[in-house]
Amino acid sequence: MTEESMKTRTSGKMVYRLAEGGAGMVRLFGSKGAHASEMAGMGLPVPPGFVITTDAALEYYRQGRRFPDGLWDAVVENVHVLEKETGRRFGGKKHPLIVSVRSGAAVSMPGMMDTILNMGVTDETVGGLAQMMGDERPALDAHRRLVQGFGGVVLGIPKDRFETVLADAKRERGLAFDHELEPDALRTIIERFKALIAEASGEPLPTDPWELLRRAIQAVFDSWNNPRAITYREHEGISHDLGTGCVIMSMVFGNLGPDSGTGVLFTRSPATGEKTLYGEFLVNAQGEDVVAGVRTPEPIAALKDEMPRVYKELEEIARQLEAHYRDVQDIEFTVERGKLFILQTRTAKRTAPAAVRIAVDLVHEGVLSESDALGRIAPEDVTQVLLPRFVPEAKQQAVDDGRLLAQGLGASPGAASGIVVMDPDRAVERAAAGERVVLVRHETSPDDVHGIIKAEAVLTSRGGMTSHAAVVTRGMGKPCVVGCEELLFDAASGTATARGKTITEGDIISVDGATGEVFVGEVATKAPDAGEMAELNVLLGWADNFRRLGVWANADNPEDAALARKNGAEGIGLVRTEHMFFAEERLPHIRRLLEVGPYASRLIREAGEAEAALDAAPASQRENLRQRLDDARSAVETSSSVPEFRAELARLEQYQTEDFYGIMKAMEGLPVVIRLLDAPLHEFLPHWEELLVEELTLSIAAEAAEHGVDAADWLAESIRKGIGGLDEPKRVLAVVDSLASRDWASIERLHEDAVRTRELVGLLREANPMMGNRGCRVGLTMPEIYEMQVRAIVTAACRLTEEGSTIFPEIMIPIVSHVNELKWLRPRLRAVASATREALGAHMTYKFGTMIEVPRAALTAGEIAENTEFFSFGSNDLTQMTFAFSRDDAEAKFIGHYVDLGVLSGNPFSSLDPQGVGRLMRMAVEEGRAANPGIPIGICGEHGGDPASIALCHELGLDYVSASPYRVPVARLAAAQSALGVLTPGE
Amino acid sequence: MTEESMKTRTSGKMVYRLAEGGAGMVRLFGSKGAHASEMAGMGLPVPPGFVITTDAALEYYRQGRRFPDGLWDAVVENVHVLEKETGRRFGGKKHPLIVSVRSGAAVSMPGMMDTILNMGVTDETVGGLAQMMGDERPALDAHRRLVQGFGGVVLGIPKDRFETVLADAKRERGLAFDHELEPDALRTIIERFKALIAEASGEPLPTDPWELLRRAIQAVFDSWNNPRAITYREHEGISHDLGTGCVIMSMVFGNLGPDSGTGVLFTRSPATGEKTLYGEFLVNAQGEDVVAGVRTPEPIAALKDEMPRVYKELEEIARQLEAHYRDVQDIEFTVERGKLFILQTRTAKRTAPAAVRIAVDLVHEGVLSESDALGRIAPEDVTQVLLPRFVPEAKQQAVDDGRLLAQGLGASPGAASGIVVMDPDRAVERAAAGERVVLVRHETSPDDVHGIIKAEAVLTSRGGMTSHAAVVTRGMGKPCVVGCEELLFDAASGTATARGKTITEGDIISVDGATGEVFVGEVATKAPDAGEMAELNVLLGWADNFRRLGVWANADNPEDAALARKNGAEGIGLVRTEHMFFAEERLPHIRRLLEVGPYASRLIREAGEAEAALDAAPASQRENLRQRLDDARSAVETSSSVPEFRAELARLEQYQTEDFYGIMKAMEGLPVVIRLLDAPLHEFLPHWEELLVEELTLSIAAEAAEHGVDAADWLAESIRKGIGGLDEPKRVLAVVDSLASRDWASIERLHEDAVRTRELVGLLREANPMMGNRGCRVGLTMPEIYEMQVRAIVTAACRLTEEGSTIFPEIMIPIVSHVNELKWLRPRLRAVASATREALGAHMTYKFGTMIEVPRAALTAGEIAENTEFFSFGSNDLTQMTFAFSRDDAEAKFIGHYVDLGVLSGNPFSSLDPQGVGRLMRMAVEEGRAANPGIPIGICGEHGGDPASIALCHELGLDYVSASPYRVPVARLAAAQSALGVLTPGE
Repeated sequence: MTEESMKTRTSGKMVYRLAEGGAGMVRLFGSKGAHASEMAGMGLPVPPGFVITTDAALEYYRQGRRFPDGLWDAVVENVHVLEKETGRRFGGKKHPLIVSVRSGAAVSMPGMMDTILNMGVTDETVGGLAQMMGDERPALDAHRRLVQGFGGVVLGIPKDRFETVLADAKRERGLAFDHELEPDALRTIIERFKALIAEASGEPLPTDPWELLRRAIQAVFDSWNNPRAITYREHEGISHDLGTGCVIMSMVFGNLGPDSGTGVLFTRSPATGEKTLYGEFLVNAQGEDVVAGVRTPEPIAALKDEMPRVYKELEEIARQLEAHYRDVQDIEFTVERGKLFILQTRTAKRTAPAAVRIAVDLVHEGVLSESDALGRIAPEDVTQVLLPRFVPEAKQQAVDDGRLLAQGLGASPGAASGIVVMDPDRAVERAAAGERVVLVRHETSPDDVHGIIKAEAVLTSRGGMTSHAAVVTRGMGKPCVVGCEELLFDAASGTATARGKTITEGDIISVDGATGEVFVGEVATKAPDAGEMAELNVLLGWADNFRRLGVWANADNPEDAALARKNGAEGIGLVRTEHMFFAEERLPHIRRLLEVGPYASRLIREAGEAEAALDAAPASQRENLRQRLDDARSAVETSSSVPEFRAELARLEQYQTEDFYGIMKAMEGLPVVIRLLDAPLHEFLPHWEELLVEELTLSIAAEAAEHGVDAADWLAESIRKGIGGLDEPKRVLAVVDSLASRDWASIERLHEDAVRTRELVGLLREANPMMGNRGCRVGLTMPEIYEMQVRAIVTAACRLTEEGSTIFPEIMIPIVSHVNELKWLRPRLRAVASATREALGAHMTYKFGTMIEVPRAALTAGEIAENTEFFSFGSNDLTQMTFAFSRDDAEAKFIGHYVDLGVLSGNPFSSLDPQGVGRLMRMAVEEGRAANPGIPIGICGEHGGDPASIALCHELGLDYVSASPYRVPVARLAAAQSALGVLTPGE
Repeated sequence: MTEESMKTRTSGKMVYRLAEGGAGMVRLFGSKGAHASEMAGMGLPVPPGFVITTDAALEYYRQGRRFPDGLWDAVVENVHVLEKETGRRFGGKKHPLIVSVRSGAAVSMPGMMDTILNMGVTDETVGGLAQMMGDERPALDAHRRLVQGFGGVVLGIPKDRFETVLADAKRERGLAFDHELEPDALRTIIERFKALIAEASGEPLPTDPWELLRRAIQAVFDSWNNPRAITYREHEGISHDLGTGCVIMSMVFGNLGPDSGTGVLFTRSPATGEKTLYGEFLVNAQGEDVVAGVRTPEPIAALKDEMPRVYKELEEIARQLEAHYRDVQDIEFTVERGKLFILQTRTAKRTAPAAVRIAVDLVHEGVLSESDALGRIAPEDVTQVLLPRFVPEAKQQAVDDGRLLAQGLGASPGAASGIVVMDPDRAVERAAAGERVVLVRHETSPDDVHGIIKAEAVLTSRGGMTSHAAVVTRGMGKPCVVGCEELLFDAASGTATARGKTITEGDIISVDGATGEVFVGEVATKAPDAGEMAELNVLLGWADNFRRLGVWANADNPEDAALARKNGAEGIGLVRTEHMFFAEERLPHIRRLLEVGPYASRLIREAGEAEAALDAAPASQRENLRQRLDDARSAVETSSSVPEFRAELARLEQYQTEDFYGIMKAMEGLPVVIRLLDAPLHEFLPHWEELLVEELTLSIAAEAAEHGVDAADWLAESIRKGIGGLDEPKRVLAVVDSLASRDWASIERLHEDAVRTRELVGLLREANPMMGNRGCRVGLTMPEIYEMQVRAIVTAACRLTEEGSTIFPEIMIPIVSHVNELKWLRPRLRAVASATREALGAHMTYKFGTMIEVPRAALTAGEIAENTEFFSFGSNDLTQMTFAFSRDDAEAKFIGHYVDLGVLSGNPFSSLDPQGVGRLMRMAVEEGRAANPGIPIGICGEHGGDPASIALCHELGLDYVSASPYRVPVARLAAAQSALGVLTPGE
């Protein structure tokens, strides 16, 4: 920065009186200062004061922690103004002016920065203060607090050293509480504090109140850069360049007798949103005493009787502030000898259900427009309204009983109880046995998903909001707490411990995925009540009026489809057909299909080619070609593979027809997008490494049968010991069992089967399956599978049509990278569809569309659009390929580290990357629409349920997003906010 | 097509007399017709004739194999013109007109379509023909040939049935050769042929010569669509919409006595390019007799003595045609009773060395400009000049000895001999033992590369020009024959058989990668001679003047760098540092590095962060932060991982410094781009599945030691049987050996090691390593490795600078997907580089650049360009991610099928895909240059040596391509052709 620009920067006014500013000056004043200023402007009883700007603080940092020229003079001048306003004097022996020095940034950073109170109380002034207060004790206590605060905050002396002095003094006198200390005791403590300061900092406590003030301001500035504040800003994504403001205000005292007091007030209930004053009040106390929690405050209603005039004034001010700010306020106030002072107001934090109720009520009260109300709710909060949560009383009871086990990050909202299980396989087992299970792990990986599916909730000790557990459970609408680092695992004993409590498999715990709290034992949960749901539905109804994006859902079965529909989905944007292949009774058929399929498919293709060649040939060639066709046909007819292949296809077709029938029936009248098989084929078969181990084990076991049956036991044992590296050695363990029980017959049978399976998997396995033979590539190399799926879809749709339903199947071809794949596949599949429909004689229509999930498809979207009837972005794969991030590997190995370093602002699998992936999407939308005007375009990746991604989809002009059924309400709100410009894409 | 446009189409002239056309009418006349026409126009002695246009043929196909209106009338009319010109009559009993009916497309399709000769010879006319010829035998023989040709070609009767009749007739008479057949025998044969035709086709041979002519023309048209021709066009990428022309020419006869004959003439030697008439001549024969190979033709020079006048005329015509066409001609001629006729001329095919010599000579002769000459050489052919090839005489001898084993596709030029080895591991072993090895496989995969590296040549029975073997060997400049399907393997005996010869491991074979020929036994090879090299260098020198693209090379060691430099490389565009890690003596150090690295790196990072926090903190925080730093430092100091990590890094740094020293020294004065570690880390460790099996095996073996030593033998045996699924079970086999020899001590030692290694690999292995933790991601998660490499590069460069060399190292960061990766890494690495340079006190400069190989990097090239000093396209990875094709998987599983189906026009890993990958590259070039004008941009993927890809790089405005050292000359020529517009990007 040049000297000139530095001058420009500091030439502005650095200190403002409260009355000079207003709520619009948040950046310059900080939030606290701006709102105090606003209230002063409204004529509310705010204690007089002034604000040092954030710019002054920034300049202070820039000059290496030196006050900019003129700052101190301006502070002194404003203190003198304060003196005039209050008729008191700073450092005066009589009527001394006492001020607070508070930090306050433009963005709320609760408790992260420092504040020093009672500034101006010194040995010189304490007498005058006592006189003014009419009591020596509160004056001396104010002095004690000043010395303690200065020593700890400004001089950085460990705070426990002051606490020790205080505790000693109370012990010496047999006292329990600070407020029981008499003047003498306080004087002793103050002297001991001074001695401590002199010893620890090497200098005595300054006696000049101006010097103290100056250093207090400096400490407030410095606290912007304490590690805690830096960490907090990094975590919350707050800029380090904002700086803090500093608010200096004349102190008022709530501890001057029964006509004094202090309290906190919410203009509506932050728990339920009910329109009633809500808060607490403590007579004859300062704010710190409320926080200390020694005396129990009274509910605010009590004030009505005790100080009716104050209550009435407070009530009026509350309504005035709520109307002024058009939102619920959280107000701090103090009553000094019957006079009410408002110290602070801010928008009240509230629970998600309260937020919804308040927003809806404010619209009904005419305070807010519908669009304003929509902007008030964070889309993520919507799920909290929909999901079960703890009964507040039950939770309070659990806290009171000391059953809080640990506190982590609330990663996926909802609350649940269940038995602790620390292994995904055990989770499956115990869930199968009818138990409610909470999966407790260090962290989760894709290998744990089967356990997560069966669990009521998930708790991990590691990972953040974008960790695997967090992302997966959010997609499933299942409570999850992550990053619960205080939970320490002991692998040997299979236990985990936190706060002195130990849990092990079978113990009941309760998890709140919204707050991150974990309790030992059961905590009662409640579903959202009818009133809450009704209010949410009002809000979402407004959202539907404002949004331009359609909201569809991803569902693989009729139950999910029904839930999606109930949550407002306007269609199914993705049915993943491969999920239907994984069912246990289907796997043997898939396996046989894959064994005979490649050869059978080749024979069928060759016969087809021979027939086409004969048809096209001139007479002179016909004889040769007739021979070729005869040979090819005879190969088809005599092969045993072909009939088996066809039989397995027929069997799968039956299964799939039922699958599609159910989903389409649930979505009657709405479109259902069904994606043809996408997964790499070897996913349907056992893992390669286990097969190798199994084969070896069987080879040894088979030999053992001949050479000494006595070896079977130690062999079984040594095999058990030697398979620690296998993730799920179920097949191998079956062999071991057979060996241990000398079941030679089954070993022989298994052996042959193992070699065959291993050979099959050996043919199918790939170095990078994500980029291998999957999706439409299989559709081209073994077309019969796609043809079978298309027949199943059209058959199910025809059957439903016959039954009187209106059905809109949309058939989607995945992993397209080149338009020629579509040019080859689409006419063939269309012919199959049309032949099937004709054979069944039903009147229904279908579309054939394309996933855009490979970068090349986006880059050539124009020519692809000419050959397809809709686009759907597979943003998960598109993100993988665009970043060259394999999701499984990247999330496990480096994305977290990248986010920590700030290399990535977030996990691109959670929120769409606008620069890279978003750019490809924009190209695809623009060029696809140019080539095929009006082509419908949606997104069906997990991003479809993420608010920032939805904002990007809105901006790109997509027609719809498709989200998990649980996230459909979130998406509806986010889509409305996008249309209203409230929500914008990230970065 | 509408009726109107059909009329327009046929309204044109469908038949032209030769004199009406010229060489410019290739599309309409076909090549043969156009050049006959051109010669007629030049006044050369071409037999009179006419051409039916390709448009007429296309119309014939369009109308369902029906002559378009007016075509036959035009043919009849032109036959009458011919009658006038020759004074003969078609179907006349006296002086009959005899014509040939030849096919001929615009593009040469040698031997793929049909031709019928002797049209007009019938029972009626044969007597008149005999009279005209002065001999009955040639006339009857012409009749025999007509009947046989018509039956086989027009009527589609299997040709061997005619051959059988002919053979029977000769056997009956005890004759060996056709030309020994006397008139009576010929008459008998003609009658038998007629009977065969009547029997096989159900109709007698037509007797009307016009009917015969009409059907011959039809057969010529139809032959465009015979399967052979269709396949050929698909293979060669020739459009199916060209159609064939049909040339009808008055026949001349070279078999009318000693003053007649026929021959073929090249205007220069097609083998060497020498400027001398080259060709063969057969007295008293027709063209077919030359082809039949019964009589040995004389060299053309003999004609000088035998027919001096004809020779002189021929010589003149040859020079005239060469000058006219400005290229070497391949001329067919016939002498009929002393009169010379030129039947055909075409540009001569030639060997690559001949092509170079001819092009250079034609420039020196003033016929061609330098740029014309550059356009004459296919870039691929350049490698053939550079590489060893068979000594022609030795090869001829091998053919004569019947040693030709098989014929495949010449996939990578060059010739070599060596012993047959059918397993890549064996290839490594026998090569290590000093033997020259030819690797013979069904096909190769990435798992075979270690064997390919050690082999002199590769031979596969499957795969095409884009198969794995083809691509890899071309990159290595190593001869390769693929798709040699006649070679049948017998796995049981370990042999392969073709043409009745069987080869097995240890047998010597010789492979010509240019022609695809494979011989049994040794065939002598020769390196290019000095003259050839000199001519090539002249040509490449011209290329260097015309090209705009720089040509650099990829090299991983000093030998390759030296070769690249010798071949004209102007820099090294890619040094792959991971290849240097694979050396056997380095692997233990890598492994230890990876074991201790992640933890040690974290401790070091934490200490660094603590130090930075302390430096930045205000006084009030210093005490706490000092404590944190002390803790972090003490963790570093007391850990055993950190010193080990540093020791291993130091050791690797030494190795790498030597590596870089050698390469940079070889490239003194030229830039050397060194890529920092790119490979996924687990590539440096044993395979996961083998480790699992090894661990199990060891567990059992360890147990066996305690329970009955007698079990060791059968256990070892059963393990051997059970590991069939492992690719390279070396580690497991070592265990088996220890078990068999009861070496319990080594089993125990191996066991512990195996578990540790398995655990390490378990941490590092990935689902999709291509998209996992590699490249700069490792650079961010474990920065010490990149820092070590940068130190090694700068140290080597400083050392060379000290020694007086001028060194330009360019350090390249791979797998960048986000600009923030560079923002994080580059300043750190630059600091390391600058500290290293300062410590060594040398004056040298270096650059830091970025690979563009992830789509997101291309999509955000603007911001990346601002943070880097050069770009280099990693087009291999970019192609993988853009298509979502894992190269290993896609080439093995579906790319071949895609090319067969026409879904892809070629393998995108061989030639850059202009639409998808090319578009990303274009964006990166344009936006990179806009943000950082003049930023140097190159390409270092395998595409850098592919001519079509080079043309695309030229079009995109890249600064240089970097190719394999063997392909540098190819790239120089391709770059020049791109600049000249001769070579254009594919599709």
